[in-house]
Amino acid sequence: MKKRIVWSLLLLLLMTPVTAQNKKSFTLDDLMWGGSNYWNLQPKSYSAAFWGDKLVKLSVDDAALAFNEKGKDAGMKRLFTVEDVNAALDTARVGKVYNILYASFPYADRTEVLLSTSKQRFLYDWATRKVVWQQPVTAGTQHSEFCAASKSEAYVKDWNLFVRTADGKAHQVSKDGTRQLQYGMSVHRNEFGIEKGTFFSPSGKLLAFYRMDQSMVTDFPLIDISPRVAQLAPEAYPMAGMTSHKVQVGIYNPETETTVYLQTGDPTDRYFTNIAWSPDEKTVYVIELPRTQDKAELVAYDAATGRRGAVLYTETNPKYVEPMHPIVFLPWDADKFIYQTRRDGYNHLYLMSVSGGEPKQLTKGEFEVLQFLGFHAASKSVIIKSNEASPIRHNLYAVNLKTLKRTLLDNGRGTHRATLSAGGAWLLDRWSAPDTFRQTELVSTGGAKPVVLQTDGTPWKDYEVPEISGGTLKAADGKTDLYYRLVKPVGFDPAKKYPAVVYVYGGPHAHNVDESWNYLMRPWEAYMAQKGYVVFVVDNRGSENRGFEFESVTFRHLGEVEMEDQMKGVEFLTSLPYVDKDRLGVHGWSFGGFMTTNLMCSHPDVFKVGVAGGPVIDWKYYEVMYGERYMDTPQENPEGYERCSLLNKAKNLKGRLQIIVGLNDGTCVLQHSLAFLRACEDAGTQPDYFVYPGQEHNMMGSDMVHLHERITRYFEDYLK
Amino acid sequence: MKKRIVWSLLLLLLMTPVTAQNKKSFTLDDLMWGGSNYWNLQPKSYSAAFWGDKLVKLSVDDAALAFNEKGKDAGMKRLFTVEDVNAALDTARVGKVYNILYASFPYADRTEVLLSTSKQRFLYDWATRKVVWQQPVTAGTQHSEFCAASKSEAYVKDWNLFVRTADGKAHQVSKDGTRQLQYGMSVHRNEFGIEKGTFFSPSGKLLAFYRMDQSMVTDFPLIDISPRVAQLAPEAYPMAGMTSHKVQVGIYNPETETTVYLQTGDPTDRYFTNIAWSPDEKTVYVIELPRTQDKAELVAYDAATGRRGAVLYTETNPKYVEPMHPIVFLPWDADKFIYQTRRDGYNHLYLMSVSGGEPKQLTKGEFEVLQFLGFHAASKSVIIKSNEASPIRHNLYAVNLKTLKRTLLDNGRGTHRATLSAGGAWLLDRWSAPDTFRQTELVSTGGAKPVVLQTDGTPWKDYEVPEISGGTLKAADGKTDLYYRLVKPVGFDPAKKYPAVVYVYGGPHAHNVDESWNYLMRPWEAYMAQKGYVVFVVDNRGSENRGFEFESVTFRHLGEVEMEDQMKGVEFLTSLPYVDKDRLGVHGWSFGGFMTTNLMCSHPDVFKVGVAGGPVIDWKYYEVMYGERYMDTPQENPEGYERCSLLNKAKNLKGRLQIIVGLNDGTCVLQHSLAFLRACEDAGTQPDYFVYPGQEHNMMGSDMVHLHERITRYFEDYLK
Repeated sequence: MKKRIVWSLLLLLLMTPVTAQNKKSFTLDDLMWGGSNYWNLQPKSYSAAFWGDKLVKLSVDDAALAFNEKGKDAGMKRLFTVEDVNAALDTARVGKVYNILYASFPYADRTEVLLSTSKQRFLYDWATRKVVWQQPVTAGTQHSEFCAASKSEAYVKDWNLFVRTADGKAHQVSKDGTRQLQYGMSVHRNEFGIEKGTFFSPSGKLLAFYRMDQSMVTDFPLIDISPRVAQLAPEAYPMAGMTSHKVQVGIYNPETETTVYLQTGDPTDRYFTNIAWSPDEKTVYVIELPRTQDKAELVAYDAATGRRGAVLYTETNPKYVEPMHPIVFLPWDADKFIYQTRRDGYNHLYLMSVSGGEPKQLTKGEFEVLQFLGFHAASKSVIIKSNEASPIRHNLYAVNLKTLKRTLLDNGRGTHRATLSAGGAWLLDRWSAPDTFRQTELVSTGGAKPVVLQTDGTPWKDYEVPEISGGTLKAADGKTDLYYRLVKPVGFDPAKKYPAVVYVYGGPHAHNVDESWNYLMRPWEAYMAQKGYVVFVVDNRGSENRGFEFESVTFRHLGEVEMEDQMKGVEFLTSLPYVDKDRLGVHGWSFGGFMTTNLMCSHPDVFKVGVAGGPVIDWKYYEVMYGERYMDTPQENPEGYERCSLLNKAKNLKGRLQIIVGLNDGTCVLQHSLAFLRACEDAGTQPDYFVYPGQEHNMMGSDMVHLHERITRYFEDYLK
Repeated sequence: MKKRIVWSLLLLLLMTPVTAQNKKSFTLDDLMWGGSNYWNLQPKSYSAAFWGDKLVKLSVDDAALAFNEKGKDAGMKRLFTVEDVNAALDTARVGKVYNILYASFPYADRTEVLLSTSKQRFLYDWATRKVVWQQPVTAGTQHSEFCAASKSEAYVKDWNLFVRTADGKAHQVSKDGTRQLQYGMSVHRNEFGIEKGTFFSPSGKLLAFYRMDQSMVTDFPLIDISPRVAQLAPEAYPMAGMTSHKVQVGIYNPETETTVYLQTGDPTDRYFTNIAWSPDEKTVYVIELPRTQDKAELVAYDAATGRRGAVLYTETNPKYVEPMHPIVFLPWDADKFIYQTRRDGYNHLYLMSVSGGEPKQLTKGEFEVLQFLGFHAASKSVIIKSNEASPIRHNLYAVNLKTLKRTLLDNGRGTHRATLSAGGAWLLDRWSAPDTFRQTELVSTGGAKPVVLQTDGTPWKDYEVPEISGGTLKAADGKTDLYYRLVKPVGFDPAKKYPAVVYVYGGPHAHNVDESWNYLMRPWEAYMAQKGYVVFVVDNRGSENRGFEFESVTFRHLGEVEMEDQMKGVEFLTSLPYVDKDRLGVHGWSFGGFMTTNLMCSHPDVFKVGVAGGPVIDWKYYEVMYGERYMDTPQENPEGYERCSLLNKAKNLKGRLQIIVGLNDGTCVLQHSLAFLRACEDAGTQPDYFVYPGQEHNMMGSDMVHLHERITRYFEDYLK
């Protein structure tokens, strides 16, 4: 039943010069992002940027032409140096450029590079050795987006939106912005794929932007202890079932200094997502959802008047519809665009037309399109990443829009992260695989053989690395394959019995196992292996990349199916002869903190020790957008909320559970953990607790070392 | 290594019948105030109240005359029953009286008892069997004080002050009250002995009251998590050196419905303390201090006009003056009053005169007057409690005002808590001693032999109680005696080595060792003794009842001398052959939490485990009144604040330290503990932390059981 794929790292170990006897042990400073030795160990990645379809190699000191548009080696012809750039700048006034690793080449037909100092953004022409355009960088912004097409910057300061046009003039778009009335900022708590609040038109002459009124939303009283007397730092936080914010979309024209708002009608309890422009800039497209999230409509608006136009596409789903990607027009046909949806159960591309007609499904199958990278116009193809080969393998494909034939572009192994060149001819592809830390390749979208640019060895060649393997086991439904990772203790002795820790996330929009390096092992797992623990991770139903049914089986009862699957993982784990079933621990953060607390309270005789970071405790304390998508409102689904609330399970706690939170967590507010403590206190159970003042939901910086020392110590105290 | 308790065996032990050899073990529910079995074990105390100089025995059901004014047994003649009282009440309208344990007899010459239901306050005349006066009880007040002389109630509702006169009419004294502008409430954060904000004149016809404007004080953002979305519950908290509140004293006359404010001048940075009335009600006396607290002035004000009159007495001290007691006039001489001060180094009584002249010292010696109980007019004596016999023994004395002769009134043992009868002839005295749980006696102030009313046996007769002893050791100055308590493990075996826990408070206005039952042992110590720990407590210099020099040696550097003395305690403790010096722990709350954290960080190689509750971490986060008295301001004493800050010692932490706080602590605000966590995180040290939502500075209720289970577990985890 259980198919096991074991990738031994023995070969890799033999290839390294240091022998097993004199290898080093990890410290958390070596392993953790934020640790003092982390960056010393990391191999430098291959830095490059596309200039049209040419590839320019970037270093601290200079930029050199690596490959021409045909993929021919250009002999690393130096284009310019950092000294050249600074010589052309009025450095006394605008400061210096210290490296050119972050250079970009916005115009394929011009010898101009976009750079900036701390004070000035500018275009340097390396042919004439002159700065051909410049503009001040606005300091202290809450958001900033630069549009190379118009050389305009949209930025937000004190919640008001401004546009600085190429002539340097700052146009103030809004004046009444406050924390509770925000312009140009991301809305809907970053759900529906929203990451920002400004959207330039293709030419950059117009700017669509979000306006969010959250004055009607209850504030959650976060506090900031960095001043001598702590200060209130409130977060407008609409909890499931409670009054939510109101969003509008405006179109600003810097030339006329006028704003038009899209005539959406009453924005109460509606979501305006995935803003996109038509190529001619006459139309703005918005994917709209009611608060119930059971319907998505692609609506066209007249950009000049704001008038609501046609609904181009409607999708409904009794559970939920979750549009995550703005539409993208074909570069060669302004009537046609690509829409992504999971309407057949998996995320796929559909070709649709402004002028109507049936959508044409471009990709199909029991796999997910993970990313749309762009077009290769020459071959009339779209370039995508999908997990067609295996749910945990992420490869790059070209899909011919006529034949719908998919062509594998990369080497077919591991997981790939790539950027597409402006003309679509080349991909700069960084990939890893269980036995490969990282390799950078220049990959052709037109059929040429990939060129290996750089192979990076493991950061850990001098260290004792545990055996890491991957495999599958059956979910609690008896049929679905779940993917796991198993990390054995360093110096593994099959005759011994080891304590084991399950690491878990378990929620939507994330996975923990794939065919990346070490099966995506988190460095802390190596640390735990070094301390003598087995570490086990399995992606349960409800996690990402496996299609709608796999994810949405948890609908209206988050945590239940997820736990059933995790317990199948435990069944497998404890079947291993070297795992001591009386010493099982569990750890997770956020949704994983929810899962950890849930597992500790629902299976108190299975798990002895748990560490739950930033946990959800009761979904009624979570926000409207995410919470109601998966749970409906507390009014609509009272039994579901009640059944899934860990407040009701606090009384079952038997083992050691430490809850750790960031004091300034505005995502999973303190109400969760504090209400859980109160419930435990009332029930006479004894969780532990810890707080990082100044940290938000996801811990950052050197606290990561402190945190993982703390987590490790807890298992060492009580599980060893 | 952690020793695990075999619960089933413990359960078996608990279920075994009690025999002389086989006593019960304590649970925290037996021991802790707030525990489910605590009250079952407590012997019922002797309930009685004075009626003039007669003693009335009170029970749930009835009141009976126990002794007449001559101290002659009155044969327990029943005065009235609870049924009698209810028969006279309109119980349908005002509810019933359920017991008469809280009855009082305000008029020596009338057969009237003051009682109340939940809705009505009333006087019942047991001779006529009638309710002779009644008044509604105001619901939802923030403060209420009843004056029997005028049958008036002063009360505060929504920060505004009201007076309900005997006729039932409610007079509104203030209308602009808010959280930031309070009328009739305690001020100056309860320092200087202030416990309330209303002060009736002797006849009850006038009311002096506090008005506190704290609108200029920075709010500390406490949060209340009991609603679904936590709400801000701010506390106006003036931190040392920062802007403080402004207090005024008003005089309200219900008859004219007018208020006059005392003409104190600008109240900025001044303290108005110890309000007292002259017998003729024409004058109000206030003891005033500047913010520097190095001077106290007794000032007379005209109650009718508010005009400032004479300064009757001035006292200065380069460290601090701390008046704690309002003046009290002699009942037989309206020109003379008693003033308490430590001006000769110990708290003593002085007879002063309104008409001037030198104060006459009434008590003198290297001991402290601990309490002024009142007068015995017949013998022209004042009745006091002092520790003249021993610093840790508290006895009752009569001081003849002519001869200044002090006469011991009680049995000379232990510590006494007494109330004086209205005529001053009798004391209802409850005392305990190291070997005596509690005895209640009727003690004569005129020389008659005490009558034993009731002897209460130990609550713990069925339990295994540890050996508890007291003793002295020398302070770090080599000369001062410090008093300690030592609790040995249950089943003590002198050949064994035991872990030991030091319990500490160490701050001013408190002591932990005296000649009360078990030397004032806290019940948790018995629990720890049962778990196999030695518990040790010593009152260091800086604690109370030992005079000004003993207390104020800590001035401007809190924690330093206190720790030196505690380390002398540790020296003694570890000299005991059965104490394992490698397993020392420390625990304390509030100032004791400061001491615990300080000891853990200053002597990291001595203490392995500490539990610090509600600790001060840096005195700059503490409030103005208490903080500046002992530390001056941060501006005046920057080195002192810096040296005493535990933020600077966070890096030294080696052992296990758990900090526990009430989330709603408005006394020692969260800034302390959170800033300490942040300092530890930055320094890479690892304290533990726990929070009780809803609890304030001093933990209450059933959480006390949870808390002490938690504290005990921590020592069991890491010290055993």
